[in-house]
Amino acid sequence: MPISRIAVGTTEEALQPGALKAALAEFISTLIFVFAGQGSGMAYNKLTGDGAATPAGLISAALAHAFGLFVAVSVGANISGGHVNPAVTFGAFVGGNITLFRGLLYWVAQLAGSTVACLLLRFSTGGLATGSFGLTGISVWNGLVLEIVMTFGLVYTVYATAVDPKKGSLGTIAPIAIGFIVGANILVGGAFDGASMNPAVSFGPALVSWSWESHWVYWAGPLIGGGLAGVVYELIFISHSHEQLPTTDY
Amino acid sequence: MPISRIAVGTTEEALQPGALKAALAEFISTLIFVFAGQGSGMAYNKLTGDGAATPAGLISAALAHAFGLFVAVSVGANISGGHVNPAVTFGAFVGGNITLFRGLLYWVAQLAGSTVACLLLRFSTGGLATGSFGLTGISVWNGLVLEIVMTFGLVYTVYATAVDPKKGSLGTIAPIAIGFIVGANILVGGAFDGASMNPAVSFGPALVSWSWESHWVYWAGPLIGGGLAGVVYELIFISHSHEQLPTTDY
Amino acid sequence: MPISRIAVGTTEEALQPGALKAALAEFISTLIFVFAGQGSGMAYNKLTGDGAATPAGLISAALAHAFGLFVAVSVGANISGGHVNPAVTFGAFVGGNITLFRGLLYWVAQLAGSTVACLLLRFSTGGLATGSFGLTGISVWNGLVLEIVMTFGLVYTVYATAVDPKKGSLGTIAPIAIGFIVGANILVGGAFDGASMNPAVSFGPALVSWSWESHWVYWAGPLIGGGLAGVVYELIFISHSHEQLPTTDY
Amino acid sequence: MPISRIAVGTTEEALQPGALKAALAEFISTLIFVFAGQGSGMAYNKLTGDGAATPAGLISAALAHAFGLFVAVSVGANISGGHVNPAVTFGAFVGGNITLFRGLLYWVAQLAGSTVACLLLRFSTGGLATGSFGLTGISVWNGLVLEIVMTFGLVYTVYATAVDPKKGSLGTIAPIAIGFIVGANILVGGAFDGASMNPAVSFGPALVSWSWESHWVYWAGPLIGGGLAGVVYELIFISHSHEQLPTTDY
Repeated sequence: MPISRIAVGTTEEALQPGALKAALAEFISTLIFVFAGQGSGMAYNKLTGDGAATPAGLISAALAHAFGLFVAVSVGANISGGHVNPAVTFGAFVGGNITLFRGLLYWVAQLAGSTVACLLLRFSTGGLATGSFGLTGISVWNGLVLEIVMTFGLVYTVYATAVDPKKGSLGTIAPIAIGFIVGANILVGGAFDGASMNPAVSFGPALVSWSWESHWVYWAGPLIGGGLAGVVYELIFISHSHEQLPTTDY
Repeated sequence: MPISRIAVGTTEEALQPGALKAALAEFISTLIFVFAGQGSGMAYNKLTGDGAATPAGLISAALAHAFGLFVAVSVGANISGGHVNPAVTFGAFVGGNITLFRGLLYWVAQLAGSTVACLLLRFSTGGLATGSFGLTGISVWNGLVLEIVMTFGLVYTVYATAVDPKKGSLGTIAPIAIGFIVGANILVGGAFDGASMNPAVSFGPALVSWSWESHWVYWAGPLIGGGLAGVVYELIFISHSHEQLPTTDY
Repeated sequence: MPISRIAVGTTEEALQPGALKAALAEFISTLIFVFAGQGSGMAYNKLTGDGAATPAGLISAALAHAFGLFVAVSVGANISGGHVNPAVTFGAFVGGNITLFRGLLYWVAQLAGSTVACLLLRFSTGGLATGSFGLTGISVWNGLVLEIVMTFGLVYTVYATAVDPKKGSLGTIAPIAIGFIVGANILVGGAFDGASMNPAVSFGPALVSWSWESHWVYWAGPLIGGGLAGVVYELIFISHSHEQLPTTDY
Repeated sequence: MPISRIAVGTTEEALQPGALKAALAEFISTLIFVFAGQGSGMAYNKLTGDGAATPAGLISAALAHAFGLFVAVSVGANISGGHVNPAVTFGAFVGGNITLFRGLLYWVAQLAGSTVACLLLRFSTGGLATGSFGLTGISVWNGLVLEIVMTFGLVYTVYATAVDPKKGSLGTIAPIAIGFIVGANILVGGAFDGASMNPAVSFGPALVSWSWESHWVYWAGPLIGGGLAGVVYELIFISHSHEQLPTTDY
């Protein structure tokens, strides 16, 4: 592990051309992802006259997010690492894989990308509401645990397929895996808390529709789950990786 | 960047065997893509008795276009570059990655492929209408912005995963990413303007059903969005790519 | 191109261990594919009480066939080439990529695999009918053209992604492309003629349910379309491949 | 084939750090998979008020399991081999690819992962029932054959794409193939017996909801089918692999 992986970074470093380009890449990737994900919900509302959620609606949301995030991670991968998610950036920070300043720069870019996506959606749909995340029939504690478990799975996937130095050819399909675990989890959590797993995904719609009820759940859950995944993967599966005896290799 | 990337090309060059084969590959790829994409809409109309759009219809359209474009890009990749879309060809031209003559040849092939696909669909469905693209409850300006944003995402994806010299193993899954961003965007824009992102996709059905209302939107939007993506990616992320500090690599 | 690619082969060759193993691999791959594809239709019939086809039913069929064929091609790829389809074998024969005897051996294995899949489906569903392919509101000529166009796309995909010596990293995702073009085409043709693109896929159900109406369409269409794709790709895109000027490479 | 592939192993070996880490990886992978798969059924029940199964419900279950298993196999691949399924571990044991002790350790981890996933689901959904697997309109013998056939396909896929030394670039997409064959089979078996193909997947829900009717079918079927696939693939396609004459290579 190079020293730089645990460095805190400096303002100077965060503002060099590479860092600004990486932030721009995060902005564009998050915009693409939120446009597809949040927009699919607005299309559903239009087609059903703001009807109740149905299995078909959940499938639509799952595919839009899975496909959209896969692409958003892909297009950012070689420029910014393709985080597209403050919880992923936090998990990378906790595991010592990004500096504090660069991480904060990513956060700002991700939140801005999500917000601009919502504004563009509002305009291009002729003024429809962007909607926002909320709890359906569960308590905030239920929702918090739900977000923690789902985001743990997401950030664990990021670590295992994209960060782990022994990832091998898994790295080739890493963006697909990262997108599809979000799609799978939406088919679960979508019916209960909207299945955000990503503070940027919930922040943009909340800001544009100015609706902040239970909003803290969508920050606390992903950051706890993502941070936990970063610590667990880094400490257990990366640090002592030479002692393993793999039986099957892909 | 080799000099040839910014050359204008000549008629002579456009008519050499390699260029004609590439055009034939674009014709076949676009035919395969439009047959699946437009045909899925005709199947939906048949099964529902020309019923209103529903979430299930949007999912069907998204999958047909995502899977079909992924394959169309794949099968053309090593022959023509697998553009399958005048907006992608335009984005490649704007970024200096294709000559003017070769680009025009591609356009003709793409428009012809789409038209033949629609004629084959009309015959093989026993004479059903091919349908055409139009705006549902939004203004032409809303539709224009919608097409710009969605096509920006598509052509940005083409650049990041297939054109960028530092794409690495992302190149292996590039055709999947290109197909799936279209699938994701259809789950948004399909309910508002049909989500074309591709002038060839809207041209064939418009010609065969002779319905040109708002047709300019489906040229202007994709060309503006695709051109913008080409300029942005080429200027910012390719030209000065040596100054970057990637934190995570796939 | 090695001489063996255009050889006719001999009985001796067809019966050597490698050929018999390849035939067994084709048998198992086709069984896996037809079990998923045909079985998904039987599940649909059970859940809807043999209800009419709907967009959701078409999506289910498309996914079952896309996922099932992708896997069936993958698991056979390194043993038999993963044809899983008499039309692909015929296209390979027409292009000079398999001998006559080996091709016939594959056909027998594919038809047997499909038939055994249907028998296993009948038993494990408690005796439900396996259904069969037929035309819905179109003439046999419409259906013939539909099967020709769809199978052309399928076998063209096999050639471009798996057979073409210049396929490069496309080979890695070839099985996905082959499966997904079938999924995309089912979203079109499924509503009109069942979208077979594969004589083995229609033969097993026809034999087990003893229903042969219009059955010739499901042989003639795929064989014409697949043979055409083999000839076109081999003559135009493989034989003179050195004269091309690729602009974008994946 | 190294000697170690047919060793029985020792308690000492099973408890060394590598083995415990592998077991932890199996625990986490199975938790992620069952959370998505079983949770998608609970979301369906919530959205439909415990309504009857429909094609949309089957599609939702198929996608959740396909995407979830693909990711679960990916994230475990380089640590434990990514079995995520006692039947896969049993198939690996029967084919001589894992020792007895290590296999038993994996089983415990997989069953625990599934159980914890169900407990987390119960809490985070606000106390909803986790449901359990059962037969719908078929006998236990029908269900047994169904599970045998489906799991044969799954473990055969694991062998062909991940274990076979001649897998080549197929190894890159192996986790996708493994996930998607389960998705395809759910579109068949989901309507008849829930389509488990995995004793851990049925054990967790059975334990948490204390419902064991016909539970043996979900152990016997997968173990017979998985064991059969391991024996067939190992004896026929791996042991004498040098005598093959591949015609098409991916």
